[in-house]
Amino acid sequence: MPKYDAIIIGAGILGLATAYHIKREKPNQKVLVIDKKPAAGQGNTAKSGGMFRSFFYSKTNFKLANSSIEFYKRLEESGVDLGMRWTGYLWLFQEDQYKRLEADLKEMERRGGEFKLIDRREIEEKLNINTKAGESEEAEIMNLKNIDVGLLVPKAGKIDVEKLVAYYEREFLRMGGEVIYGTEVDEIIVEPEIKLELPGEPYFWQEAKVSGVRMGSKIIRGKKIIVATGVWADQLLDGIGVDSYQKPKKRQIFVVKAEEEKLKRLLYAEGFNREGCIPFTILPYPRIYVKPSIEEEAFWIGYADDFNRPFQLEEEPQPEENYYRYGIYPVLSAYMPQFKDANPINAWAGQYAINTFDGQPVIFGERNLIVVGAASGSGIMKADAIGRIASALYFGREKAELYGGEEFKVEHLGIKNRYVEREEFVI
Amino acid sequence: MPKYDAIIIGAGILGLATAYHIKREKPNQKVLVIDKKPAAGQGNTAKSGGMFRSFFYSKTNFKLANSSIEFYKRLEESGVDLGMRWTGYLWLFQEDQYKRLEADLKEMERRGGEFKLIDRREIEEKLNINTKAGESEEAEIMNLKNIDVGLLVPKAGKIDVEKLVAYYEREFLRMGGEVIYGTEVDEIIVEPEIKLELPGEPYFWQEAKVSGVRMGSKIIRGKKIIVATGVWADQLLDGIGVDSYQKPKKRQIFVVKAEEEKLKRLLYAEGFNREGCIPFTILPYPRIYVKPSIEEEAFWIGYADDFNRPFQLEEEPQPEENYYRYGIYPVLSAYMPQFKDANPINAWAGQYAINTFDGQPVIFGERNLIVVGAASGSGIMKADAIGRIASALYFGREKAELYGGEEFKVEHLGIKNRYVEREEFVI
Repeated sequence: MPKYDAIIIGAGILGLATAYHIKREKPNQKVLVIDKKPAAGQGNTAKSGGMFRSFFYSKTNFKLANSSIEFYKRLEESGVDLGMRWTGYLWLFQEDQYKRLEADLKEMERRGGEFKLIDRREIEEKLNINTKAGESEEAEIMNLKNIDVGLLVPKAGKIDVEKLVAYYEREFLRMGGEVIYGTEVDEIIVEPEIKLELPGEPYFWQEAKVSGVRMGSKIIRGKKIIVATGVWADQLLDGIGVDSYQKPKKRQIFVVKAEEEKLKRLLYAEGFNREGCIPFTILPYPRIYVKPSIEEEAFWIGYADDFNRPFQLEEEPQPEENYYRYGIYPVLSAYMPQFKDANPINAWAGQYAINTFDGQPVIFGERNLIVVGAASGSGIMKADAIGRIASALYFGREKAELYGGEEFKVEHLGIKNRYVEREEFVI
Repeated sequence: MPKYDAIIIGAGILGLATAYHIKREKPNQKVLVIDKKPAAGQGNTAKSGGMFRSFFYSKTNFKLANSSIEFYKRLEESGVDLGMRWTGYLWLFQEDQYKRLEADLKEMERRGGEFKLIDRREIEEKLNINTKAGESEEAEIMNLKNIDVGLLVPKAGKIDVEKLVAYYEREFLRMGGEVIYGTEVDEIIVEPEIKLELPGEPYFWQEAKVSGVRMGSKIIRGKKIIVATGVWADQLLDGIGVDSYQKPKKRQIFVVKAEEEKLKRLLYAEGFNREGCIPFTILPYPRIYVKPSIEEEAFWIGYADDFNRPFQLEEEPQPEENYYRYGIYPVLSAYMPQFKDANPINAWAGQYAINTFDGQPVIFGERNLIVVGAASGSGIMKADAIGRIASALYFGREKAELYGGEEFKVEHLGIKNRYVEREEFVI
């Protein structure tokens, strides 16, 4: 007899949100979470930029993010500290970029997306940045743009990922969930329903299913196995011929302290939010982002490069000094001269688990195996919805109820009947 | 200056069909085909079952296969020997399996798919096989079915893959195309449009493109690079952060000689086709196929196992004796007792390049790179259409003209605006 109803491999944000919602729905389920790291959320979850926004064109993205953010907000209101800071998002655009987005923005507004437009004068006044970078000498070679308009989205900000992970883990444990950390799953075991002792069984004519996991010489059996290991999923799934639809791509974050007065003034820019800081700001092109971290009196700076950034699974991806120096710095300091001569005091790298087909999460079942992942860089802000949908799939329901009551058809994030609306608002 | 207009990596059937159609459309293009094998079509193309059928539910599949088959047929009629044998396909079904297909078959007929139904009595008469396998002792454990109805598709058969490859290669060379065999491409080179001599360039703010290929210390430059290496594509594309959407899955073929009289009678079964042989026959369940090879007085036997068959790139995948003995043999001999005690005299294995999302080919451009592949096991029968579509993409056209004049929107096999009709008739 299997010892567990569910074995979840991966104690990242998606694995724990799934574990939590399974226990929340049916506390009598015996659920085990296994992770190779010594504690929860220590893989790529820990490397996340930790941002959220309820502002997407795609209905899929909007539902997943908005309901998750509402859930996190409710938790905070009920006294759980998740370190949420409603800094807002500020996209900076040249006029022609904005024009191309205008129709989509109207549609997003109609669907309930909130935003406010800010003109160049106001951007200059509040941030004192260079709105004429597109006319500079380097502009042509670096493809810089002028800044003519800002799109400020208020229902957005940052969240403390560690605290969010800790919440799901704590509640999961409180309800009797079990964890094994510091132990790597080496193999997902497939066995025939009826053992015939044929060499190499099961053969294709035998009924077979995944029956457990092997860690070294130890085998633990479960009725269902849920793989939520992000970029590491194919290491387990390739062996049983199941695709996880995620490819690893390195993402780097550089921390620059607001030491000089000019950077402090930029960090504590007023008039955008109640936090009294610059919003999470995205430059016109290349779309480098600048995230305020008042707690550290610093900025987190990053860029999501695509073409020519390898797909390469790395256990401990490292940030690259040259990526900041030659990639980010010249662009950043052209738009925001406050960063001139400022150097990162810290940096790290993680890996996005990218669904290269449509960039949205994948949640599907194959026999008694469930795969949850491919969050493609927006896993934190969608984790609660993803956990609810994975839990619905686990219990065999067609629909998941997201926080707030909206229903979501489970198969829409699956493969065979996948239906995800394309994201038109790509930052 | 780049030496070539197009460098095509991979001299398999898709690479050569693409090369041929580019030259056919514009003979002045300088086109180079490179392959690591010592000759054309020596990778997984050579391992193919070499079957074709103009019988699919999905309009995408039907168009690609039908137009390609018509092209091959026209070549044969004009004197090019491609070893086409119109054996037909024969699917064997239990009544309830057939019932579930009935509506789809009606629709396929309406769309021009030809077929004929054969009842049990006729199957018994012509093939002398066991139509009552579903009532045998092993039936439950092996999931065997009775055979109540046969679906005979006449516009189908086999083709000599080597001859098809040789045709495309010969014509490509005749038009002045160039080849380099026996040389492996180690890297696709990405370079900035304007070199600034920054360490690690190009950075994301630099205009960059693929500019050539490196083979050892030798670099050859081309204006466009086309990757048509099937399962090996990610080895090249991962490095530049582009997905090829194909995963490798081993497929095995076992050759059984028709030595005994009973097997000879099965091989030379009359009344199905002008070849005077058993059609390419697919058992009810598990769907093992039996292909007639009159030239060898033999059968080719195979099965496309899915779950628990690893995704694993292998340079020289090997057939497994146990896969025949314990997998195929017990099922095959239960349905076709003529195979009792018969053993394979030859066997080999290749790898399908599977698109795990929708099982259909992928043809897309990324900057000046083109990726052609993911034929998912039906590359031979669709190769001509795929070559025409890839050629259209190469020349920047929105539509390809398939053989026979039908148009095909190139982006429908791409990623961003992909539109492929789902295959309902899965064998």
